[in-house]
Amino acid sequence: MVYREGLLGKGELSKIKYTSSLLDDAEIYRETILALITHVNELNKVGVLPSNEAEAIIKALRSLAKEPYKPSDEYEDVHEYIEAVLIHRLGDAGGWIGLGRSRNDHVATALRLRLRKLIIELASSIIELRRVVLNKAIETADTVIIGTTHRQPAQVTTLGHYMLYLDELSRDFLTSLLSIYEVVNKSPLGSGPLAGTMVKLNRVREAEELAFNGIVENTVYATGSRYFMLASASITVSYLVELGRFINNIEMWLMPQLNYITLEPSHLATSSIMPHKRNPATLEVFRARIGEAVGHLVSMYSIERPVEAGYQLDLQEETRHAWLIMRIAIDGVGMITDLLRGIKVNEGRVKEDLVKYPVTAAEYVELMSISRGIPFRNAHREVAVMIKEGKNPGINPTEAIRGKEVLGGPNPSIITESAKARLIELSSIEAKVKELEVSVNKAEAELMGD
Amino acid sequence: MVYREGLLGKGELSKIKYTSSLLDDAEIYRETILALITHVNELNKVGVLPSNEAEAIIKALRSLAKEPYKPSDEYEDVHEYIEAVLIHRLGDAGGWIGLGRSRNDHVATALRLRLRKLIIELASSIIELRRVVLNKAIETADTVIIGTTHRQPAQVTTLGHYMLYLDELSRDFLTSLLSIYEVVNKSPLGSGPLAGTMVKLNRVREAEELAFNGIVENTVYATGSRYFMLASASITVSYLVELGRFINNIEMWLMPQLNYITLEPSHLATSSIMPHKRNPATLEVFRARIGEAVGHLVSMYSIERPVEAGYQLDLQEETRHAWLIMRIAIDGVGMITDLLRGIKVNEGRVKEDLVKYPVTAAEYVELMSISRGIPFRNAHREVAVMIKEGKNPGINPTEAIRGKEVLGGPNPSIITESAKARLIELSSIEAKVKELEVSVNKAEAELMGD
Amino acid sequence: MVYREGLLGKGELSKIKYTSSLLDDAEIYRETILALITHVNELNKVGVLPSNEAEAIIKALRSLAKEPYKPSDEYEDVHEYIEAVLIHRLGDAGGWIGLGRSRNDHVATALRLRLRKLIIELASSIIELRRVVLNKAIETADTVIIGTTHRQPAQVTTLGHYMLYLDELSRDFLTSLLSIYEVVNKSPLGSGPLAGTMVKLNRVREAEELAFNGIVENTVYATGSRYFMLASASITVSYLVELGRFINNIEMWLMPQLNYITLEPSHLATSSIMPHKRNPATLEVFRARIGEAVGHLVSMYSIERPVEAGYQLDLQEETRHAWLIMRIAIDGVGMITDLLRGIKVNEGRVKEDLVKYPVTAAEYVELMSISRGIPFRNAHREVAVMIKEGKNPGINPTEAIRGKEVLGGPNPSIITESAKARLIELSSIEAKVKELEVSVNKAEAELMGD
Amino acid sequence: MVYREGLLGKGELSKIKYTSSLLDDAEIYRETILALITHVNELNKVGVLPSNEAEAIIKALRSLAKEPYKPSDEYEDVHEYIEAVLIHRLGDAGGWIGLGRSRNDHVATALRLRLRKLIIELASSIIELRRVVLNKAIETADTVIIGTTHRQPAQVTTLGHYMLYLDELSRDFLTSLLSIYEVVNKSPLGSGPLAGTMVKLNRVREAEELAFNGIVENTVYATGSRYFMLASASITVSYLVELGRFINNIEMWLMPQLNYITLEPSHLATSSIMPHKRNPATLEVFRARIGEAVGHLVSMYSIERPVEAGYQLDLQEETRHAWLIMRIAIDGVGMITDLLRGIKVNEGRVKEDLVKYPVTAAEYVELMSISRGIPFRNAHREVAVMIKEGKNPGINPTEAIRGKEVLGGPNPSIITESAKARLIELSSIEAKVKELEVSVNKAEAELMGD
Repeated sequence: MVYREGLLGKGELSKIKYTSSLLDDAEIYRETILALITHVNELNKVGVLPSNEAEAIIKALRSLAKEPYKPSDEYEDVHEYIEAVLIHRLGDAGGWIGLGRSRNDHVATALRLRLRKLIIELASSIIELRRVVLNKAIETADTVIIGTTHRQPAQVTTLGHYMLYLDELSRDFLTSLLSIYEVVNKSPLGSGPLAGTMVKLNRVREAEELAFNGIVENTVYATGSRYFMLASASITVSYLVELGRFINNIEMWLMPQLNYITLEPSHLATSSIMPHKRNPATLEVFRARIGEAVGHLVSMYSIERPVEAGYQLDLQEETRHAWLIMRIAIDGVGMITDLLRGIKVNEGRVKEDLVKYPVTAAEYVELMSISRGIPFRNAHREVAVMIKEGKNPGINPTEAIRGKEVLGGPNPSIITESAKARLIELSSIEAKVKELEVSVNKAEAELMGD
Repeated sequence: MVYREGLLGKGELSKIKYTSSLLDDAEIYRETILALITHVNELNKVGVLPSNEAEAIIKALRSLAKEPYKPSDEYEDVHEYIEAVLIHRLGDAGGWIGLGRSRNDHVATALRLRLRKLIIELASSIIELRRVVLNKAIETADTVIIGTTHRQPAQVTTLGHYMLYLDELSRDFLTSLLSIYEVVNKSPLGSGPLAGTMVKLNRVREAEELAFNGIVENTVYATGSRYFMLASASITVSYLVELGRFINNIEMWLMPQLNYITLEPSHLATSSIMPHKRNPATLEVFRARIGEAVGHLVSMYSIERPVEAGYQLDLQEETRHAWLIMRIAIDGVGMITDLLRGIKVNEGRVKEDLVKYPVTAAEYVELMSISRGIPFRNAHREVAVMIKEGKNPGINPTEAIRGKEVLGGPNPSIITESAKARLIELSSIEAKVKELEVSVNKAEAELMGD
Repeated sequence: MVYREGLLGKGELSKIKYTSSLLDDAEIYRETILALITHVNELNKVGVLPSNEAEAIIKALRSLAKEPYKPSDEYEDVHEYIEAVLIHRLGDAGGWIGLGRSRNDHVATALRLRLRKLIIELASSIIELRRVVLNKAIETADTVIIGTTHRQPAQVTTLGHYMLYLDELSRDFLTSLLSIYEVVNKSPLGSGPLAGTMVKLNRVREAEELAFNGIVENTVYATGSRYFMLASASITVSYLVELGRFINNIEMWLMPQLNYITLEPSHLATSSIMPHKRNPATLEVFRARIGEAVGHLVSMYSIERPVEAGYQLDLQEETRHAWLIMRIAIDGVGMITDLLRGIKVNEGRVKEDLVKYPVTAAEYVELMSISRGIPFRNAHREVAVMIKEGKNPGINPTEAIRGKEVLGGPNPSIITESAKARLIELSSIEAKVKELEVSVNKAEAELMGD
Repeated sequence: MVYREGLLGKGELSKIKYTSSLLDDAEIYRETILALITHVNELNKVGVLPSNEAEAIIKALRSLAKEPYKPSDEYEDVHEYIEAVLIHRLGDAGGWIGLGRSRNDHVATALRLRLRKLIIELASSIIELRRVVLNKAIETADTVIIGTTHRQPAQVTTLGHYMLYLDELSRDFLTSLLSIYEVVNKSPLGSGPLAGTMVKLNRVREAEELAFNGIVENTVYATGSRYFMLASASITVSYLVELGRFINNIEMWLMPQLNYITLEPSHLATSSIMPHKRNPATLEVFRARIGEAVGHLVSMYSIERPVEAGYQLDLQEETRHAWLIMRIAIDGVGMITDLLRGIKVNEGRVKEDLVKYPVTAAEYVELMSISRGIPFRNAHREVAVMIKEGKNPGINPTEAIRGKEVLGGPNPSIITESAKARLIELSSIEAKVKELEVSVNKAEAELMGD
């Protein structure tokens, strides 16, 4: 309505609704206003907008930010809606906000403002997961469990050992995520629609006000690229898919025939017909959502395929998938953190099976090869035949665990020591993430006049 | 709450919300009730539920169907919610509906009931698209346009010719879709959780009441498989991706430098900063949504990957992607139908370019080869050199079009004739789809007592 | 070389290799020649190519078909290679084959010729799988196994019951596949590059010679669309993903802690270090390949996204993914057919667990509800509490199986009867597929002069 | 053969071929040998393998590395093949290499060795692309081109401006890639099958010999996780998809109706029938391959979905997709580098269109708003109406470009200055990547005794 009327006339509501991003824009409502406040500030600073008008607009924007976001159907997006409200409240002067900006740079700014907060939120969830996992590692450093490969009993190990697997995976991801935060946390503000504007905006000053760590320089890149979003989403999906594999482990260990672990009943659901079912509901939903996340990433890629370098409306449809991926990650990581906090190993059951299955046969072969001085392959073949004949060669499981002096193995003192060192390291990462959060919140509060 | 308390105790709201499908179930609220009414009928018919109790439950279900769906947060899904309401309204007798059924078979039934309606809706949209396209083909059977390959002017042809391309694609898809309708339109009702129930339900009778064309026989398949949903979704996505390619054509022809066509302004949007922009907004959004549909299909596949043959909660998360794909298709096909209805060729512009670019060079070479009796390759090479030297060899465009007597080419009389024959064929397809719709609506109305 | 020199000059080998499809074209070498022979025939029939020249070219083509396909690097694709060979062997006359055709229609023809054979091959594999599965169903109609939902023991059933699940899934797929065969099995030959040619080819006659069931009419559609390939690939992937879920079941049943089934050792592999491992190697590879197939389908969709309606070179890269999907399906279905032929249930182990886990609790509740006349939910809650207290309520497993008179359940006589009926139905499907194969082979042999 | 015979007997060739990774292992043949040499060294150092035997094995391994990789069909993978050759050449002593290792840790090691080299190769390609792009930016800092959004002329800008867009995108990616290199470049060697081995290997020493920057600590993580591969692949695909969007630009600019740029003819191909076609073949193939890369990533994710935390054979099938993604990136980046080196703007054509299309209307509105002191929206509406009426308001294009003093815009001196600064920065990145390469090559040469 605001934008199209001069050139294209009134438009049809059904098509405006089809193409509008109003609903999705709820996610970036606050961020859009933050960008606009910074922009109006800057228009004033460079002298194209008098202070009194700037102040009036900013005041109106701040008060809008405190109101619920309830736009009527007729707007193309949150930008048109806000401009219409401003004009409604302030008269034509509301139309000043269009100077020196485009939706293209302002949307990009809002997306980066929103995404950096979600990254901080996800990083904090990962930190909490790691803390739980590391403490659980210490607690279960000698709680025996049967490790599997090919879904078959493979080697004896401990839950603590598996916990450090989760920790190291999450640690690698945290490194990647914080490195990508640096790519995200730059300001596209002031880039105009594609090739800049004639207003002599100080983009560096704008970036500072928004607590960005520098600017996205090139204006084509700043307005049209979504690399920052793809990188964040794809690295997160890569982590989730790996994390989801451990859900398969938990589900396996929960099978009544194994019954190696017990979860808090709040993570279970039952059947409406079979009164004995204990279904791992939260796990299944998180696992499914990880599957969804893969699809959301594909949506993002697919959307971009036919799009040229500058902005096209297609990109508008991409955004929701990024939010969904981040939300799946944050919620799911929280859920699994809670679950792992309450996980218990049924040591009796594990010990029964340790006797039944030759899960120390590899260790037995190794010791045989070394002590008898025969090549490993000969020892391996010999023991394979024993097992084929129904024998169960092996060594004492505790020995198999304690005897592994190699770094990264299940030896309980190595596990404990390593977990403790990681907890210290984690505190310093946490402090760094906290710092990011504080600086972001401080800048936002200032802009909002809080 | 209703289901879990005996075995697992009360549960935590945050986890119930995490795992609940209540929100998504809005899409199948009516269908869930239809399945329940049929089920209660059957319990009565096989003699395990007295008529007065059956009638009371059915009455309550019918009245529920007329109320807005506003469940509170505490339920796992629409089934638990409905059962709770029934117990609340009818006392313990509401708990009879659990006999001889599981959520597994009832969800599968509701999904198929819903999906078959969406397929009918999509088929009707395709029929409407085809009607518009076929009429446009007749209207533009000799409206010249420049056909492209590799995004380069290739051969002269007509818009009518392109319209029949869209028609034949849509016709092939319609064939596939209606064939898959037969796979979808079968009843899983009465299959229990996995391996049937002890109640002697007459599954064939249930299927008839719901106007299904037979039953999904095997109960493991009926309850746990989602092939019917994957087949519908994947064939639809395959069509959408192909259809989306024509959006690339329209966008190309709309470029001001080409300006070959004009659209109704309601399909365009402009820029908030650049007052001259005429952006093809509906097309870009539909194209992006097709990209999303690819991702939704991947979500469906990804979700199923770790799931065994029977039901797992993971499957609950898959459903929304099927609805989204169908919705993207129905809305988008409607949008492009409207767009094509109003598309206009700027014949003057096309004719200017016909003179500029050697788009009848292939025809020229062919005629040269035939008339001079020289092998095609020699003629081709000769003409290539001419073009390299800046000449523009060719034949009269109208001749190039009319001279193509080959079936399926741009010859206007062939186009017109073919489009007319297709319109007749289409009427009979439409009648068939109408029939499906009527039979479905009739059965539903009877069950609902309307 | 043959094509580019006139207009573009010689080209650089590294780029020709980058863009060439020569290697991939091995898959359609024979089919390309079949299309060319038909084409040359037609040129002769419509009088633009004298019989002696046509015969010489056809003779050369037939002899080429018998030679190994060993093109040197310099060609863009199999078409340029064949034309170059013809010119080398026959002189300039070889260049006649370029008349009235384009690579666009000839590639499309070769793809459809190849794909229809692969569909026939896949359909035959499915038929063989179904035969094995149906016979196994009869053989194991009362071989008890524990059915699962949520990877937890759910209900007692039989292997025969699971076999009919596989059969019904495969039957639905076979229906879809043969319906899509009709979409594939049409002739694009004679469509030229996009908008037909000036040569008055009789496309219907060409189609008949190639045993196609009619023509793809519109020439834009015939040359540029890949719907036929997407439909075939996507329906196949949808089946594979569903089939792959049963691999998860087999892997679960193979876990030593369950040990419900035994496979032929040829399907297992062991560890190079752990001499006791029995890893289900063929299953894991097939499951992984199904995962790959999902990706191949995404490749196909992704490739098409930026491509307009006519041919673009992008499409060339799509083809290999279609072949890979078909190959994954054919090989994997063969592998799992072999595996299921040799699958054995360890009945002793299953019976041990039937006693341990309340897998007839649902049946117990149902009978309690019916016999005591209390609403199901009350009975369910009562039994849930019993189970919580460690009791194991249930009914005799054999009774639970035989008592299920509902269609599609595990009742052994229903299973046996149903399997027998399906075997009869299968024979007629097999005859139909055989017929397709015979007609295809006959046409090809005639064209090849065999 | 070597591994399975004791427990499982001989095996069937068809199944061994189905499950074997022999063909794919060609890619990691050298890396597998490097890991084995390090391992044998370590066995000797920790005293379980006498020096003379160790030396003999290492000698044999080094000589194997120099031979072509031509295994016969009977082996499961490169490990079994190498062990068989060693036993064949050295007698039973060859079987020592099995001690203290598993294929699980050795495959993981080989994958990381290979991947780090591919990352270095890709990083070097990106550096070369950036150098070309930056120099081209300087060269074309005032070569006017028409920038587009929504595939419509939007603003006047320069090719130099677009070049810096490509540079900044590539720079962000390079940062991500080198950060992920740190995740990849760690040693899993010595982790055994899952939970370590009884041999007291010094994993840190092994890592140093292989020039890894530390170890992957946890042995479950080291052997079973593929996060390092997913992270590398997904970030690369994210870049490729963004890069591919510029291919859409080039293809658009190449359209004869625009004719804004000219490419070297070696990047073009023509038609076998239409002698005038100049198809951008290398671009189309690269664009299609990017589409394939999306699918390859999905294959990787899909394969991992059902797999638990430890190794499963499924993972073997994942690897090839990672190599393909890296290969697509390296080759395609090289191709586009070559293409951009030779790209030329047809300035005459661009200038014609600058006059035709109001691509400085936004700038005109801005200046009007500022100079007349009227709110932007009012000015925008006024100009929109002018354009609707067929006027072409605007400012001098050169002014529009030079007047943009905002950072990141098209102003030629800002472009030039920025490009020069980036070239200096690039040299130091290049030096860093070179250093990585040298250290890797040196370590490998030492192990190979070169």
